[in-house]
Amino acid sequence: MNQKGLTPGEVLSLLDNAGLKNTPYEKVLSAMCTKPHPIALKAHMQFIESNLGDSGLFTGTKELEEKVINIMGDLMGDSQACGYITTGGTESNIQAIRTARNLAKKKHPNIVVPVSAHFSFDKIADLLGIEIRKAGLDNQFRVDTDSVENLIDDNTIALVGIAGSTEFGQIDPIDRLARIALSNDLFLHIDAAFGGFVIPFLDKKYDFDFSIKGVSSITIDPHKMGLSTIPAGGLLFKEESYLFPLEIDTPYLTIRKQRSLAGTRSGAAVAAAYAVMMHLGREGYKRIVDRCIKMTDTIVDGVRECGVQPLIDPVMNIIALDVPDLDEVRKKLRAKGWFTSITRDPSAMRLVIMPHLSEEILELFISDITSEISTLS
Amino acid sequence: MNQKGLTPGEVLSLLDNAGLKNTPYEKVLSAMCTKPHPIALKAHMQFIESNLGDSGLFTGTKELEEKVINIMGDLMGDSQACGYITTGGTESNIQAIRTARNLAKKKHPNIVVPVSAHFSFDKIADLLGIEIRKAGLDNQFRVDTDSVENLIDDNTIALVGIAGSTEFGQIDPIDRLARIALSNDLFLHIDAAFGGFVIPFLDKKYDFDFSIKGVSSITIDPHKMGLSTIPAGGLLFKEESYLFPLEIDTPYLTIRKQRSLAGTRSGAAVAAAYAVMMHLGREGYKRIVDRCIKMTDTIVDGVRECGVQPLIDPVMNIIALDVPDLDEVRKKLRAKGWFTSITRDPSAMRLVIMPHLSEEILELFISDITSEISTLS
Repeated sequence: MNQKGLTPGEVLSLLDNAGLKNTPYEKVLSAMCTKPHPIALKAHMQFIESNLGDSGLFTGTKELEEKVINIMGDLMGDSQACGYITTGGTESNIQAIRTARNLAKKKHPNIVVPVSAHFSFDKIADLLGIEIRKAGLDNQFRVDTDSVENLIDDNTIALVGIAGSTEFGQIDPIDRLARIALSNDLFLHIDAAFGGFVIPFLDKKYDFDFSIKGVSSITIDPHKMGLSTIPAGGLLFKEESYLFPLEIDTPYLTIRKQRSLAGTRSGAAVAAAYAVMMHLGREGYKRIVDRCIKMTDTIVDGVRECGVQPLIDPVMNIIALDVPDLDEVRKKLRAKGWFTSITRDPSAMRLVIMPHLSEEILELFISDITSEISTLS
Repeated sequence: MNQKGLTPGEVLSLLDNAGLKNTPYEKVLSAMCTKPHPIALKAHMQFIESNLGDSGLFTGTKELEEKVINIMGDLMGDSQACGYITTGGTESNIQAIRTARNLAKKKHPNIVVPVSAHFSFDKIADLLGIEIRKAGLDNQFRVDTDSVENLIDDNTIALVGIAGSTEFGQIDPIDRLARIALSNDLFLHIDAAFGGFVIPFLDKKYDFDFSIKGVSSITIDPHKMGLSTIPAGGLLFKEESYLFPLEIDTPYLTIRKQRSLAGTRSGAAVAAAYAVMMHLGREGYKRIVDRCIKMTDTIVDGVRECGVQPLIDPVMNIIALDVPDLDEVRKKLRAKGWFTSITRDPSAMRLVIMPHLSEEILELFISDITSEISTLS
C-alpha cells in the first residue's frame, strides 16, 4: 500500500482507464447477467450502507427483503414461501442442498442432478461432502426421469430439477420429478436461477414451481433476468422449517440467529430487487421477455438461412446452434467483437439473448456469422 | 407480483419510507461496518455492471482485483500473496478452511480455534463437516497456546488465530501459534477480518501477518475498517497452490476455472476497495485509526469517572465494559437511541468505535451511560 494517498481526481482517472478495458454488453451473447434497470441502480445507491447481516439496524431494508421474498414466492406459485436474498445462484443451491443434507442425516449422502446442472453443484459436492450423481438427458436435453430413478438409492437425500438450464435453456419435467421425489420421500430442489424470471412470462405455460406438490425449494436470481444489481440471488423454501437447519447463533448482533451463508450482506441489492420488481410488475417483465424471445427467433431464422440449425427449438432466450467448425467460427466472431459461448455435450455454439441486445445488433451478428460460415474452407 | 408496475416516483416514495425505518449510523456503537468512503461509492456505481464471476468480460475490473490483492498482501507482510475478493469474512474463512481440509485429506478432520472465534466457524463446522475444537483464553482474552497444543491430535488439519477478535478486539499470539503450526505441519489461518485494517496503523506494533513464518492464509475485510462498500471481504494465501483445491471447471464462461465460492461476483465492490485504498494510502488509514483510538480512549476515560472499568485495556477500537446490571443499562440506553452489544464470556457491554462516530456524540453517550448507571436502584 502506498504511503501517501492519491487525490480523488487521480483515483478516478485510474478507474476510467480500468473501465475502458471492460467489455460493454453491446456484443455479449454469452452472459446471463445484463445491465441492471435504472431504477435498480437508484435504489442500490440509496441503500448502499445497509448490512442485512445485522438486520436489527436496518429494519426498513429487512422489510424490503421480506416483500421481495413474497413477490418472488407469488411468482413461483406460493406467496407463503420463505427464504432470503443470497449472493447468487451458487449460495442458493448450496443452502438448499445443505438443508436437505442436514434434515436427512445420512452417513454417505448423495443427490441426483441432471447432467445439465450448473457447475455450482460440483462446488457443492466438494463443500458439503456429498456425492453428486448425474442423470442423463432425453433428446430434447431434459432430464431423463428413468435415469433419475435408476440412480436413487438408500443414501439419496435430494433430487434437483432445472428450470432454464444454463446450456440449453431447457426445462426439466418437474411434475414427474416431483412424483418421484414424493414416492421416495426426497427433497426436491429446482434451480430456476435463470428461468425464474423468464418461464412465468412465456406464452407457452410450463409447470415448474411450487404449484407442483413435492417441490421443496427454488433458486431464482434477481440479478439475472430479474434486471437487478449484483449480488442478488434468491432462495425460496416451501416450508419455514427448511430454514432451521441453516440457523447459527449470533451472540453479538442485533439479531439472535442468522440463516444466510454470508454474514455481512448487501442491503443495496435487496432494495434494488424490490424497486425493479415493483416498477416492472408482471406486465413489465412480460414485455422484456417477449422482446428477448422475439430476438431469439430473429437469430434462429437468420442462421437457418445459412444452413445452421439449433439443437432444439429454443424454449427460452438461450440458443444452442450446431455450427460447423465451431472453434474457428467462434474465434473469427471474437475478432469482430462478439462474445459467444459453448455447450459441452453435444458441442455447440451457445447464445444467451439478454435485454441488453437489440434487433439491429443481432442483424449484424447474423451477417457476421453467415459470412464466416460461408467462407469456411 | 403485481400485474401492473408502479411509476418510478411511486417506487422511490416506497423506498424513502423504508429508508426512514433504518438506523442512521450516528448512534450505532455495535457494528463492525460503517459508512463507506465517498470515493468508494463513486467507484461502486461506475463498475456496478461488472461481474467478476465471468471476468473475461471485465478484464479492467479483474486487474483492479489483482491490484487490491497486491495492496492488501503488501499491508499483510507479503506483496506476493495470492487471493481474491470474497463476499465477506465468512466466505474467506470458509474457503481457507476448505483448502486446508482438501489438502490434508483426513477422514475425521478437526481444527483448533480460539473460543473467541467468530460464529462463522460454527457455520464452517456444519458446512464442511469438520469438528471445531475451541481453545481457552488467557486473562487478556488471547488464545491460550497450551490449550491449543492440548487439543491437537492426528486429525487436526489447521489452527486459527484471531487478529482483532470480534468481542474483545484482542490479538492472539500469532508467533507462538505459528511455531506450533510449523512443528505439527498444520495450516494456520489468521482471521483479521476486522483487525487487518487497524493493527498495521496502531502506534504499538504487533506481529500477526505473513511476516511470521508459518502463517498460511489471512482474512481481511475491506468492507469493515477498510471503508469500502459491501460486499468486499478479502482472502489472502501465502502460496498460490492453496487456491488450487478450490478450483472448479467453468465450461461456458470466458474463464476456464473459478476459485471463488460465489459464482456471479460484484465487481463494483472491488473497484470501490481499490479506489479507497489508493485514495487513503497508509497515511489516510493511519489518520482514521488514530481518530478511532482517540475516541476509544475518550469512552474509557469517561466511563471510568462513573466507576465502570474495561475488562482489558483496549488493544484497538473495540471496548468490553464491565457494566453493572448490564441488560437494564443497555435497555435504557437503547431507549435513548444507542445501539450497544455484548460479549458472551464474561458478559460485558461491547462497543465498537467506528469512523462514523464523533467525539461530540461520544460525550453524549458518556453522559447517558453515566446517568443510567448512577440511577440504578
